[in-house]
Amino acid sequence: MDIPSIKIGIIGLGVVGGGVVEVLRQNADLIALRAAAKIELVRAADLQVEKATAILAQLGLPDVPVSADWREVVSDPQIDIVVELAGGVEMPRQAVSAALANKKTVVTANKDMMASCGGELLRLAEENGADLFFEASVAGGIPIIQAVKESLAANRIRQLMGILNGTSNYILTQMTENGSSFETALAQAQALGYAEADPVNDVEGYDAARKIAILSSIAFNTRINESMVPVEGIGKISDWDITYAKEFGYVIKLLGLAQETEEGVEVRVHPAMIPLSHPLAAVRHSYNAVFVNAFPLEKAMFYGRGAGGLPTASAVLGDVVNAARNIISNGRGRWACTCFLDKAVKPLDETQSKYYIRISAFDRPGVFAAITGELAKQCISIDSVIQKRRLSQESAEIVIITHKVRHKNMALALKKTEGLADVMKVENVIRVEVSLD
Amino acid sequence: MDIPSIKIGIIGLGVVGGGVVEVLRQNADLIALRAAAKIELVRAADLQVEKATAILAQLGLPDVPVSADWREVVSDPQIDIVVELAGGVEMPRQAVSAALANKKTVVTANKDMMASCGGELLRLAEENGADLFFEASVAGGIPIIQAVKESLAANRIRQLMGILNGTSNYILTQMTENGSSFETALAQAQALGYAEADPVNDVEGYDAARKIAILSSIAFNTRINESMVPVEGIGKISDWDITYAKEFGYVIKLLGLAQETEEGVEVRVHPAMIPLSHPLAAVRHSYNAVFVNAFPLEKAMFYGRGAGGLPTASAVLGDVVNAARNIISNGRGRWACTCFLDKAVKPLDETQSKYYIRISAFDRPGVFAAITGELAKQCISIDSVIQKRRLSQESAEIVIITHKVRHKNMALALKKTEGLADVMKVENVIRVEVSLD
Repeated sequence: MDIPSIKIGIIGLGVVGGGVVEVLRQNADLIALRAAAKIELVRAADLQVEKATAILAQLGLPDVPVSADWREVVSDPQIDIVVELAGGVEMPRQAVSAALANKKTVVTANKDMMASCGGELLRLAEENGADLFFEASVAGGIPIIQAVKESLAANRIRQLMGILNGTSNYILTQMTENGSSFETALAQAQALGYAEADPVNDVEGYDAARKIAILSSIAFNTRINESMVPVEGIGKISDWDITYAKEFGYVIKLLGLAQETEEGVEVRVHPAMIPLSHPLAAVRHSYNAVFVNAFPLEKAMFYGRGAGGLPTASAVLGDVVNAARNIISNGRGRWACTCFLDKAVKPLDETQSKYYIRISAFDRPGVFAAITGELAKQCISIDSVIQKRRLSQESAEIVIITHKVRHKNMALALKKTEGLADVMKVENVIRVEVSLD
Repeated sequence: MDIPSIKIGIIGLGVVGGGVVEVLRQNADLIALRAAAKIELVRAADLQVEKATAILAQLGLPDVPVSADWREVVSDPQIDIVVELAGGVEMPRQAVSAALANKKTVVTANKDMMASCGGELLRLAEENGADLFFEASVAGGIPIIQAVKESLAANRIRQLMGILNGTSNYILTQMTENGSSFETALAQAQALGYAEADPVNDVEGYDAARKIAILSSIAFNTRINESMVPVEGIGKISDWDITYAKEFGYVIKLLGLAQETEEGVEVRVHPAMIPLSHPLAAVRHSYNAVFVNAFPLEKAMFYGRGAGGLPTASAVLGDVVNAARNIISNGRGRWACTCFLDKAVKPLDETQSKYYIRISAFDRPGVFAAITGELAKQCISIDSVIQKRRLSQESAEIVIITHKVRHKNMALALKKTEGLADVMKVENVIRVEVSLD
């Protein structure tokens, strides 16, 4: 076949890098047809040179040179596309910047980098007439970035709700469906290789925050960095929260949420109760999904594998094929940074949600009136109440779901409630999120 | 803002055309930013000139000239993009061919045309260095064509399973959830405007066949025309089939199915029972969804509104924005026809499925042995059986689910079964489809 050759270099041969090389080999025929070019790996960089060399040899590429220094990849004149799959922020940022300055196309899976300095890198790409693709940085194999940026380009996005972290979704699914404790479910996730030894990024919501930052920047054409996303993890969710959620007809998910309101763009990550009838409620185990509400699209959902070497390689190599098409058709720079606007970001205090509140209290006359009185002072009205579980002879648990209320009012009401004589503790507070109509 | 102007002409100002004009106006600011161009409607064609003129006037465009003749649009030298939203095949085919010959980009929502002569039109586009976009021709607002063609370009698609017709999905949902009869549910769909006065395209599966033809052509890089898709509609589904499906843990959906097997590409449309745990089982009412199983993507699903003026306008205008980006970046012809291969299409007789069979029979000794004997002669083994509903004093209904079997063996076994002395009738036969692992 007489087709051009597009040469790529990979920085970082870990799980995703290995997946990319494997897929490049297994699907070589299809990829060549669809890219209208032979995609050829000509150089790699990885700090563990020997291990990386062994991986390449095992995948039938014993002659591809591997260096510990990324500079050898970004400065290699024969390379058209630099594929950045290393971890962290600073080194990748330097490597990607250098590649773009050399007018090379860059494909990255690095959410940490894109969520902290994506704007800077996209502008650099634009200045150099180069392309920077990052589909794999959000939701692994799910092609949500091209969908939101290109396919939905005529839409005013009203809301994005994403299950963006497979580990925490796996844990919550185990807690919901098998009655596992958080600790047991986390240990299972670690045994299955979903969660890392230090699970903080997954269970504390930082990973999801990076992804919703990247996605909302595209959806609202406004740069949202990771540091602008308030985050709350799933570590405080107890089996009782799971049980009460079921009684109210909800399921608990770790959501990355972004929506446009009259007071600005709202972006946050936290556990939330969502109705069992919501399409996201059926997203189980380690799957990810992004629910989009937009005009004129109405409601849509994108579902799939949010992590793993092979699904992520699907996104990386989809970008490589698109990048190759751009190079061949002389259409580089077709899409650059789309943060044309600078919309206000709404402070967390001003965001509004329904809330679930679980309070342990002494079971004395007037305790319920005292609690609801504190809520009323903050103009918080109550949707439904369960008071049932006896904690001891003299104490019980009160569970309340409120109507929509501002975060600051809820925070103040809870502080006052905790100070009440008969209240033992506000055990947990979880937002209840219902789709926009 | 100092941006170029891209001029479009629309052929066909019906429900989708009206939606496109409305969204162009309402989201003008965002569309201009994202297209990096002002998208300007400068001419329209519609057989009902007065009505079309009134629609445009109502949407704030009283000065856009409307003609009954599509030639005035395709030959207008100022027009960059022709948006074809007329019905039928022959006239649109002529109009699109003429526009492409004039080197104009074409955006179409016309599934009938694309499923019968998409190959010819895409080649014509390629010859003229023009672009032909058709996202709106499959699954309305769901951006499945760009996803399969571009985002998933590195994948070997193993299977596509689609709920591609909102009307029939609405009818089946009403039958399943509210116990409605087919006739009542159809009347409701018509009252809600989902089904047309003549519902044959929707309920007999022809509409879904066109969509799966277009989608499988892209997925398998092989031209599949509508005429190559065996079709079976939902008209024969009875409330008893719905009831038995539930007992077995299934739900009935009208599926467009395409998969690659060693014996060729398999494409078909028919009602099917799918497990309640399958993500497609949760796709209710008039929603559409496409489930994809691919390497290295694994499993993914795309869900949303499959019809309606506004969701379809999302797809049409997403294409217009992409088309504008191609024009501005001189990247036209970036993706052309992707039917590079000419894979064999497997004959229906050779396709394999599990089957549900419902038989009415005289309740005499030996009838069950006789039926299962006929199945055994065709090497059909049985997965599960229900024999319960008494039809009269001397007759009852036998329901069988088989293991996987070739269509031709099943057809032969059923013919023989119908000839058995004690068998009254094979009441219905429905495939049972389980995702590939």
